[in-house]
Order: sequence, then C-alpha cells, then structure tokens
Amino acid sequence: MSDLLFVSSNIYKFKEAKKILNSFEINIEFLKLDLEEIQSNSIKEIAIKKAQDAFSKCKKPLIIEDDGLHIDSLDGFPGPYSSYVQKTIGNQGILNLIKKDRSAKFISNITYCDKISCKCFEGKLSGTISNSEKGKGWGFDPIFIPKNTKQTFGELIEKNNVSHRYKALKKFSNWYLNRQESNDQ
Amino acid sequence: MSDLLFVSSNIYKFKEAKKILNSFEINIEFLKLDLEEIQSNSIKEIAIKKAQDAFSKCKKPLIIEDDGLHIDSLDGFPGPYSSYVQKTIGNQGILNLIKKDRSAKFISNITYCDKISCKCFEGKLSGTISNSEKGKGWGFDPIFIPKNTKQTFGELIEKNNVSHRYKALKKFSNWYLNRQESNDQ
Repeated sequence: MSDLLFVSSNIYKFKEAKKILNSFEINIEFLKLDLEEIQSNSIKEIAIKKAQDAFSKCKKPLIIEDDGLHIDSLDGFPGPYSSYVQKTIGNQGILNLIKKDRSAKFISNITYCDKISCKCFEGKLSGTISNSEKGKGWGFDPIFIPKNTKQTFGELIEKNNVSHRYKALKKFSNWYLNRQESNDQ
Repeated sequence: MSDLLFVSSNIYKFKEAKKILNSFEINIEFLKLDLEEIQSNSIKEIAIKKAQDAFSKCKKPLIIEDDGLHIDSLDGFPGPYSSYVQKTIGNQGILNLIKKDRSAKFISNITYCDKISCKCFEGKLSGTISNSEKGKGWGFDPIFIPKNTKQTFGELIEKNNVSHRYKALKKFSNWYLNRQESNDQ
C-alpha cells in the first residue's frame, strides 16, 4: 500500500502526516504541487475542489489536507486563510489582534480522492492562544495551547498523538484500511 | 448602452461604480451574485477567473471588480483577502496590527468579459493607514488616507474622483467607449 500520495506545497504537513499514518501502517509519498484553491468559508468545500484538482493532475489515489486556526473572538479568523495570514502578519500579528477571549480551535480536513470517490475526514482540537510565542514547530504551533495542557504545540512532544491532524488522519485510516481489506477479499 | 452588468455581492461597490461610470456616460445594472473565487496572491488572476465564472452564468457583457488594501509593513496583508479580513478582524484589527510604517495602497482591478474578450484595467492609489477610524464610508474607508490629503476616504467628499476604483474605471471607460464606437461604425 505505497501508492497513496500526499499532495501539498507544505513539507511540514507531509512529515507530520507520514509519521502519523506510519503508526497506522499506511505509507504515503510526497507530491509537491501548488493546487488551485477557491475562496470559501467552508474548509470542506476548499478541500474537495483541491483534491479533485490534484487527482486530475496526477491520476493516482491521493490525500490532501486543509487546515485552519479559528479564533473565536475574531469571528473565526484566520480560518481558511491561515496559510496566507501566517506568511504575512505571522504569529506576532495574531498575538497583537487578540485581547481578552483567547479561545480557538484547529480544524483539519483530510480529503481522499481516487477515480471513484472523494471523501472527507475532519479532526478538531480546541485550545487557547498563548500570551507569547513558545517552543519550536512551524505555523501557529508556538502560539496554540491545546485544551487540558499548559504547553503550546511548539513545546509539546506528543503533538502528533493529540493534534487535529492526528484526529482527522485516524478517521481516514479506519476507513481506508477497512476499505482496502474489503477490496482485497 | 445599458446592457452592461456589474456583477458583485457588494452593493456599495456597485453604487460607487455606477456614479463614476455615469460621469463617463456609461450605464450599468447591478447583478447580485456570489462568485467562485480562487485563492491567489494575484488580484488579476482572481478577477479573470471570477469574470469568466460570471459570464458563464449570465451570458451578458459584464464587469466585475476585485480590490484590495495592501499594507507595506504587513507584507501586503490583507491584499486579496481584504473582504474576509474586513468581515472578521475589521478596521480595529488592522489598527492593532500596524506599528511604525503605516504606508499602504489600494488596488482595484476592473475586469470586463463578454463572449469574445476578457480584459483587465488596474487602478492604484497610495496612502497611509490612519491612527484611528475617522468619517463614514464602508470597508476600509475610515482608516485609509490617500496621499496628498489629510482626510480618510470616510471623510473625503471627493473620494470618487481620486480613488483606485475611479482610476481603474476611467481606464475601462476609455477602452469601452472607443471599442463601442468602432463597433458602431
């Protein structure tokens, strides 16, 4: 089962996804592609269009991921535009925007696409935005503290066992492995 | 010449555009449509795809507008996502993000589309971000001070004679009227 591609322009996402999927005995290969993205407030809608675009280009079973940080007091900002916001105003920008209510959630949407089906798997993780950047990691890792912890994703060694990405990939794996087994019979 | 549609989900844009185009003796009608938008750092690319999408839906000559506020010290943020950023963090969010360098520019891209051609017209206006919201208006009007003035777009009575939208629509009008005249001969 090594014919599954992970299509993304972000190598960090791939590395995390590979580690997580390997623990479920699924292997993935990286295909670096800039995919066309529509603007929408629905991450699921963005993900499906992106996966279909990717499949039309590479014609192999694949998964893509769209994820976003949604901050309650900022009406869900940066949401579907997390990547652009990270590149422009960055973590410091987010910290400058937040006042009292620091609650937020990360949502990951893993979308599988092959010539027959296109299927989404969502993982959510609630938490809060820290007062300052802490730890390493990439993206918003240094400012997101998952609920029931006191450390940011950037400090948390077990990030890949609790993250929104882990939750979405676990759902995908359950479906994918059962599906494969049915196909093998 | 009243068969030209202005396709948008934003009535304020239409009202401004209508006033400006009327001064060039071009009439437009409003067609409220939510159009599919790709995510891209290129406003021109977004505009062309949007105009083609609109034309495929209404089959009539039309213009659409994409505009964005680009803040130098924030790497061009909010740029192509100005509308989403306005709806979420709003003007106060922008004011919280800016520190020393307050320079910015507004860019408008008017795109015309009919069954034969698709053509873009760009208008740019430099300025600065004010220290606080001033005046009325919509969108970023209360925080954008055009160069060579001391008032925000929200305070400026002559906004429609100097704006990025005016500049783009003037270019469009020159082309459109000459083209019409050629067609009429």
